[in-house]
Amino acid sequence: MNTAVTKLLKTDYPIIQGSMAWIADASLAGAVSNAGGLGLIAGGSAPVDVVRAEIQKTRELTDKPFGLNIMLLSPNKDDLAQLVLDEKVPIVTTGAGSPGVYMERWKAGGVTVIPVVASVALAVRMERLGADAVICEGCEAGGHIGDLTTMSFVPQTADAVKIPVIAAGGIADGRGVAAAFMLGASGVQCGTVFLTADECNIHENYKQRVLDAKDTGTVVTGRIGGHPARCLKTPATRKMLAIEKDNPDALEEFLVGSLRKAVQDGDLEEGSFMCGQIAGMLNSRKTCREIITDMFAQAEALLHG
Amino acid sequence: MNTAVTKLLKTDYPIIQGSMAWIADASLAGAVSNAGGLGLIAGGSAPVDVVRAEIQKTRELTDKPFGLNIMLLSPNKDDLAQLVLDEKVPIVTTGAGSPGVYMERWKAGGVTVIPVVASVALAVRMERLGADAVICEGCEAGGHIGDLTTMSFVPQTADAVKIPVIAAGGIADGRGVAAAFMLGASGVQCGTVFLTADECNIHENYKQRVLDAKDTGTVVTGRIGGHPARCLKTPATRKMLAIEKDNPDALEEFLVGSLRKAVQDGDLEEGSFMCGQIAGMLNSRKTCREIITDMFAQAEALLHG
Repeated sequence: MNTAVTKLLKTDYPIIQGSMAWIADASLAGAVSNAGGLGLIAGGSAPVDVVRAEIQKTRELTDKPFGLNIMLLSPNKDDLAQLVLDEKVPIVTTGAGSPGVYMERWKAGGVTVIPVVASVALAVRMERLGADAVICEGCEAGGHIGDLTTMSFVPQTADAVKIPVIAAGGIADGRGVAAAFMLGASGVQCGTVFLTADECNIHENYKQRVLDAKDTGTVVTGRIGGHPARCLKTPATRKMLAIEKDNPDALEEFLVGSLRKAVQDGDLEEGSFMCGQIAGMLNSRKTCREIITDMFAQAEALLHG
Repeated sequence: MNTAVTKLLKTDYPIIQGSMAWIADASLAGAVSNAGGLGLIAGGSAPVDVVRAEIQKTRELTDKPFGLNIMLLSPNKDDLAQLVLDEKVPIVTTGAGSPGVYMERWKAGGVTVIPVVASVALAVRMERLGADAVICEGCEAGGHIGDLTTMSFVPQTADAVKIPVIAAGGIADGRGVAAAFMLGASGVQCGTVFLTADECNIHENYKQRVLDAKDTGTVVTGRIGGHPARCLKTPATRKMLAIEKDNPDALEEFLVGSLRKAVQDGDLEEGSFMCGQIAGMLNSRKTCREIITDMFAQAEALLHG
C-alpha cells in the first residue's frame, strides 16, 4: 500500500508503532520494522546510554527504517535530541509540545521529523517549522491524551495542512485504517494493538488485561489536575480517581514508578496500565507481522474490494 | 445511497438528524425529511400537547418519514411513549437508558425503535429486546455524552450485533460518512451540522458561534458530577467549570433553563450552547437539502469514486 506516508518513511505499510514509555524497546520496534511498518523506540526519560543501546539493538534486529520518540517534557530531551544525530536515527517523532528548538539541526542532519500534535493550530505551526508530517492523536488513545477525538481531529487537520496527516487513536484493524484514510489521513499510528504482540515484552498480567478488556474497560485519570491519561480500569485507577478528587496534586506522588510497576511487575494495585479504548476489540495474540499484514489486507479489501 | 438504514427508515439517504432539546422542531425535522434524511422532533421535557403540535406541523411540512426522540430521564416519558402510538409516528429514537418497558407496545403498533446506546453491552441488550437498529454516539458529539469515541465504539458494536449500527459523533461531511461506513455503520446521525442549517431556528448568536468555532472550541462540563455534556466554550462554561470544581451538586442549579437561554436568547453568560467537536469544520450556511446532498455526494465519491 503506497501513500505519502510510505514514501516519507520508506516502509511497506503506512503504519507507525506508537511509542510507549517502558514498552517500546528494540524487540518491539525491530519486529514492527521487519514486518514493514515503522518501529519506534521510546526515549521516555531513560538515560541516554540506555536509549543508545536500544537503538543499536534495533539495528541488529532489522535493516529497515525505524525511529525514536522524544517526549518533550523529558528532563534529558536535549541529550536525546543530540542522540538522534549521533546515531543517525532516520526518523524522530515528538510528543508533549513543540520540537522547534531542535528542528533546524535535525533537518540539517537529514532527519525526518513527525510531531504528535494536540490541535489544528499546533499542526499548522509544525508545518511552518518544517515538520515532514503530523500525527493527530485522538483521546481514545492510551496514555496521555488531549481533548479531540480521531474522528473530528483528522479531517480538520487535513483541511489545514499540506503535509501528510497520520491518524492515531482507536485504530487496531483494517476498518480503522480505512476510516482514517477516508477522513484524510495517509497513514496511521497504533499503540494498543502492539501491546498484544508476541514481541512486546510487557508483564503477562498487562497483556492478558488488554486482551480481556471490554469497550468500557479504560478510564481517564488526571483530568482534574490537567494531565489526563487513559489506562485500563484497575484497583490502581480506582485509587487514583479517589486521590485526585480529594487532592489533584497528590496524584503525581502516586504515579511515580507506576508505569514501571505495570510493565515489569504487572502490579494491579500500584501500576498504570496505559491502554486505548480499542482494547475491547482485541482478543488474540499475534506477531507484529500478523498484526500488520492482517490489518492492511482488511483495509485494502474495504478500500479497493 | 441504499443501505440497511435507508431500507429501515424508508429514506433516500441513511442519515438521521440528531434530536436536540429546544432545537429539533417541526421546521428542522420537516426540512431534513423533505431533503431525504430522517428528521427528528425532540420530545425533551416539553408538554405532550406541545410535542403533538410539532408532530402535526411536521406532517404539514412533509409527507416523508420522520421520528420522535424520547429522552428516558424526562418526567413525561410515559406520555410521550403513548403519543408515539396515538399520532402514529413511524420511528422513535430513545436516549439516556433502555426503552424496554415501551418496546412491546411500540413493536405491536408497528413503530421502528432505534435506541441511542452508550456501550456495546447496552447495544446487545437492545437487540435482544427487539430494537430495529442502534445509534452509537461518540463523545465528540454535542450535548450529553458517554465515554467512548465514535472511532472505537462503532466497530466494536458492529462486531457484537446483527441489527444496523448508526454512527453519531464527529460526522459533518462526506469524509465522516465514509469513515463511519468503513467502521461498520450503515447510517449516520448528525446533530451539530444541522445547527448551521437555514431551517434551524436557533438564536443568531448560537449559529454564528458554531460557525466561528475552532477544533478546540468545545468543552465538557459536568464530568465531576457524572453528567458530562459538551458545549461551546463561553463565559457560561467557564462559570460552570468553576462551580463544579467547588461543588458539583451546585451545577444543576446553574443549568436550569440554560438550554432555553442559549437557543432562544443567545445568552453567552448563562446559556448552554450544546455543540460537537466537529463544529470546527463548519463555516458556511446551507439549507438542510444542501447539507445532505453535499455530504452524500462527497461520501459516494470517496467510497465508489
